[in-house]
Amino acid sequence: MAVNVVESKEWYLAGYAADGVPTTDHLTLRSVPLSLSLDSIPDAHVAVQLLFISVDPYLRTRMSGQEDGLYFPQFSLNQVITAFGVGRVMRSKDEKYSEGDIVLNAFFPVAEYCVVPSSVLIRKIDPEAGIPLPEYLSCLGVPGFAAWVGIEVLGEAKPGSNAFISAAAGGVGMVAGQLAKLKGCRVIGSTGSDAKVRLIKEEFGYDDAFNYNKEVDFDATLSKYFPNGIDIYLENVGSKMLEAVLNHVNPHARIPVCGMISQYNQIWTEREGVRNLLNIVGKEVRMEGFLVGSYLDRFADFTVEMEGYLKQGKISSKIKIYEGIQSFAESLGSLFSSSNFGKVVIEVNKPR
Amino acid sequence: MAVNVVESKEWYLAGYAADGVPTTDHLTLRSVPLSLSLDSIPDAHVAVQLLFISVDPYLRTRMSGQEDGLYFPQFSLNQVITAFGVGRVMRSKDEKYSEGDIVLNAFFPVAEYCVVPSSVLIRKIDPEAGIPLPEYLSCLGVPGFAAWVGIEVLGEAKPGSNAFISAAAGGVGMVAGQLAKLKGCRVIGSTGSDAKVRLIKEEFGYDDAFNYNKEVDFDATLSKYFPNGIDIYLENVGSKMLEAVLNHVNPHARIPVCGMISQYNQIWTEREGVRNLLNIVGKEVRMEGFLVGSYLDRFADFTVEMEGYLKQGKISSKIKIYEGIQSFAESLGSLFSSSNFGKVVIEVNKPR
Repeated sequence: MAVNVVESKEWYLAGYAADGVPTTDHLTLRSVPLSLSLDSIPDAHVAVQLLFISVDPYLRTRMSGQEDGLYFPQFSLNQVITAFGVGRVMRSKDEKYSEGDIVLNAFFPVAEYCVVPSSVLIRKIDPEAGIPLPEYLSCLGVPGFAAWVGIEVLGEAKPGSNAFISAAAGGVGMVAGQLAKLKGCRVIGSTGSDAKVRLIKEEFGYDDAFNYNKEVDFDATLSKYFPNGIDIYLENVGSKMLEAVLNHVNPHARIPVCGMISQYNQIWTEREGVRNLLNIVGKEVRMEGFLVGSYLDRFADFTVEMEGYLKQGKISSKIKIYEGIQSFAESLGSLFSSSNFGKVVIEVNKPR
Repeated sequence: MAVNVVESKEWYLAGYAADGVPTTDHLTLRSVPLSLSLDSIPDAHVAVQLLFISVDPYLRTRMSGQEDGLYFPQFSLNQVITAFGVGRVMRSKDEKYSEGDIVLNAFFPVAEYCVVPSSVLIRKIDPEAGIPLPEYLSCLGVPGFAAWVGIEVLGEAKPGSNAFISAAAGGVGMVAGQLAKLKGCRVIGSTGSDAKVRLIKEEFGYDDAFNYNKEVDFDATLSKYFPNGIDIYLENVGSKMLEAVLNHVNPHARIPVCGMISQYNQIWTEREGVRNLLNIVGKEVRMEGFLVGSYLDRFADFTVEMEGYLKQGKISSKIKIYEGIQSFAESLGSLFSSSNFGKVVIEVNKPR
């Protein structure tokens, strides 16, 4: 018999974290009763059991309360956090969805269960496609799409381009490097540990990589790895690495700016500035920030291409799965340590 | 009877100026004999008497000797400086040019006379067109073309866009503001004196303008002048103004980077950095450096459009003319003081 009321644990924002890594002072778990009886669900809504939730660095930027400085829309205090996720439809008041459908949504509550308008669902997933569900949050999700927009749309990757990927073993970086290789680029990555250097060279096919924690002079490092200069820099870290890159860019280099993880835990006035932006004039560099939400008209093209790569084994991903909704704060914190490998996901409920 | 040998005074680079405004320690005038006899002129070359030379801020960036930090090709030591100019053909070994033709060249020696390959000449000027010759170095020259590329090509100016022009009373800025107005933008300028604020509002049609020397908090200033945010920022100054702008950009703002005059006289490691570049992610800003030399395939389109505006009186320019080749160093220095108005030009020889 169908359960009609569940206790759903969810994460809400108890306080903004102006700087530092958010802790349970800022992110708090609570339990709320949620009615799943069909007559309590509004028309054109569905009740969903969350299966997997995507944990991405951009979430941090929505918790600072520094609207002016950071320019990402802030989560509201005492409201549930939202994130990209995969869920299973439990009840439906929309004839396009049925119980058991597996669905994707960019703004699921970080919760065990929810009731959402069916209009927010991106699409159904075919469980027979042979792709593990967490992959829909990795190569086929926010990080994969960000990598695709960065490398293929804004980076204009071409055979022979020299591509540099920062945060190269992270969720975006590992996919970006593989995409750039598929486009014929020479690809170098920077990452935060020797183990990750090995990972991206051995598993993700980077031509070479370095551990930025061991480099004392990024300028010298880039001279060594880019004797012919940099044509594409997928920017994920900011500050000193960007400054070094701007001393090695080739004419008409592209710098798609996906994020700047080194900057998320600092108030902007306390960050180190980039002093050599003038170089973008002489080298005619195009530096462009992007949010994947602005490219959703390309999401279907991306999905077709990426599903093809996955089925042909041309792209793979490494996914770190944290168990249970209670692991959200810890998993988010892990993104800001050098220990994190690949894409971070929470498994909220076991898929049946 | 034709003169066969002239003494031509020319400016050469005696030493690089890593920082500060170049002085006569770095820029030195010398006199060299130049044969103008037809048999001494190589085939496909012309002998030219310089009439007007364009004095632009980018020239400074070619005198630092800091190739890595600045990324502009450096002038060679002991070689003559080159600049955009207008000259009169005195002798021709190319049937396309005749004595008396008025010609444009992007790389004339900063000299009284020269012999150059005819292939470097951009075009002949029709003296009957009714446009004063210095205007070919202003609205129709490097600064006018830079303004056009910045506002129309990269800035994608549209009716209703909020456009902000820095160095607004300078050679590029005065044209950029007028072009943005013609495209239907709301245009605000920043400049370095109250007299220039009046000039750009009264003569160049800026909707409003401010004297940055009187503003203590650029963030507050931009809040006042851009209650609806900034869609286009034509970057000509860098540093603190750019930082303030990045706190006021609208989604998908364009920042064509023409130059950063506040940065030219400092070694890059000593400049103040820009700390809030992360904002270009959240607002999806496109920041793009450009050199007009890369857009020469559009120069003819630009010329047609700009000549039309000039003839219709829709665009005007203010030109400060320094007399004589000896005024080059002083005129270049004037660009880095707040006292400079409009486009700076040297009149080398009087047009006949």
